[in-house]
Amino acid sequence: MVAEPHHFHRPDFDSAFRRHLHELLAWRRDVRQFKREALPSGTIERLIEAACLSPSVGLSEPWRFVIVGDADRRAAIRVCFELCNQEALQAQTPDRSALYARLKLAGLNEAPCQISVFSDRTTAQGHGLGRLTMPATIDYSVAIAIHTLWLVARAEGIGVGWVSILDPVRVAEILDVPPAWTFIGHLCIGYPEEETDIPALQRQGWERRHPSAGTVIQR
Amino acid sequence: MVAEPHHFHRPDFDSAFRRHLHELLAWRRDVRQFKREALPSGTIERLIEAACLSPSVGLSEPWRFVIVGDADRRAAIRVCFELCNQEALQAQTPDRSALYARLKLAGLNEAPCQISVFSDRTTAQGHGLGRLTMPATIDYSVAIAIHTLWLVARAEGIGVGWVSILDPVRVAEILDVPPAWTFIGHLCIGYPEEETDIPALQRQGWERRHPSAGTVIQR
Repeated sequence: MVAEPHHFHRPDFDSAFRRHLHELLAWRRDVRQFKREALPSGTIERLIEAACLSPSVGLSEPWRFVIVGDADRRAAIRVCFELCNQEALQAQTPDRSALYARLKLAGLNEAPCQISVFSDRTTAQGHGLGRLTMPATIDYSVAIAIHTLWLVARAEGIGVGWVSILDPVRVAEILDVPPAWTFIGHLCIGYPEEETDIPALQRQGWERRHPSAGTVIQR
Repeated sequence: MVAEPHHFHRPDFDSAFRRHLHELLAWRRDVRQFKREALPSGTIERLIEAACLSPSVGLSEPWRFVIVGDADRRAAIRVCFELCNQEALQAQTPDRSALYARLKLAGLNEAPCQISVFSDRTTAQGHGLGRLTMPATIDYSVAIAIHTLWLVARAEGIGVGWVSILDPVRVAEILDVPPAWTFIGHLCIGYPEEETDIPALQRQGWERRHPSAGTVIQR
C-alpha cells in the first residue's frame, strides 16, 4: 500500500478560520513592552521553520536568521540603537521632538529572545530567477519571512517588535556575520505586556491609521 | 450603557487555528495557472482592506494599490513581461536555458484580476520614524502588505501570483501613476487551476526547498 502524498490533503479554510485570521492581522502588534519571561524551549526554532514556508523570489530562500544570545553582543546592539535613535531625535522637527523623545521604540532591554534577520543577496539558490530587473525582490522575500514569523508568533500569544533604528553595517559587524549578508531587521521576541488592536504609535499620538480606500486607484 | 471598546475583545487563538494557519502557509502558492472565472464583486476591496492591517514603518502605510482593468494597459504589461523574460532567458547559463524557456512564470493572460502595488517613499505619514538609517523599510512594508493580501486571498481559495519580471519604470509609465510611486510588484489574482503544497518551481525542477536549519546561526 502506497501512502497518499502529502500534497493531496487539500485543506479547507472555513469562515471561522477566516474570521480568526482577520483577528490575527488586527491584533498583531509591533511590540515594545515585553515581559522578561523566557519562551518555551524550541519555540524559536518552530517560528523560524514556519517563516521558511514564506514565498521567495525564484525559490531563493535568501533569509538568514541570527539568534542573538550573547550578552556583550546584545549590549552592543542596544548602544547602536541608542546612537541611531539620538540622531533620529535630532532630525525631528521642533514641534515633534518632545513627542518623539517620549516614545518607547524597542524592547531591547526586556525581550528574552532576539533575532537579527539578514538577506543573502549572493545566494546561487534560485539561479537568479525573477531578480534581473528587480534585484530588491530578494530583500522583500526576507521582509515577508519576518512577517510570517510575526504572525505565527502572535498566534501563540508571543509578541514581536521589529527594530529598524539601527546602523545596518554596524549590526553586521557586531554579529560577525558572513560579508555577503545584508541586514534587514532586528526582532525582539517575547510575551507582550499587553494586547491591543490599536498600533502603539497611534495610542501614543504619533500617527494614526487611514482608511484603505485612500490607497487605491483604478487604471 | 457604554459599549465595550473593540480593543478589549482580546482574541484567543487555539491549537486548531494554529494548525490551520500552518496549513495556510504551506498551501499558499505563487500561482501562474488561473481559471478565467471572475472573482465575486467586492473581493478585491476586501483583500486590500485586510492588506492595510499590515505593519508599516512608523505607521506610514506607504502601500498604493492600482487595480488594472483596462485592456490596453494589461496588454502593455504583458509586452513588458515578455521583453524582460526574453532578456532573463538570454542571461541564463546554457545548461539551464532550455528549462527556463519551459517555465510558465506569469498568469497575465488568464488571471481575471490584476493589481500593481507601489510604495510611496515620499509620504509624510509616519513623519519618517524608523526610516532614517534604513530607508528601504518603507518598501519592505509594501512587500509585507502584498503578503497579507496573498494569505487572506488563499484563505478564500483565491490564488495570487507575484510577477517581478517587469521593468519597474515602464510599469509606472504604463499605469500612469504619480511620479513619487515606486513599483514593488504586479499581482495576478484569481482561482487557481490546481492546489498543492509544493512550490511550482520545485515541481518543474528549477529549484527545491532546503531545510530551515541551514539558514540559522547563533551569536
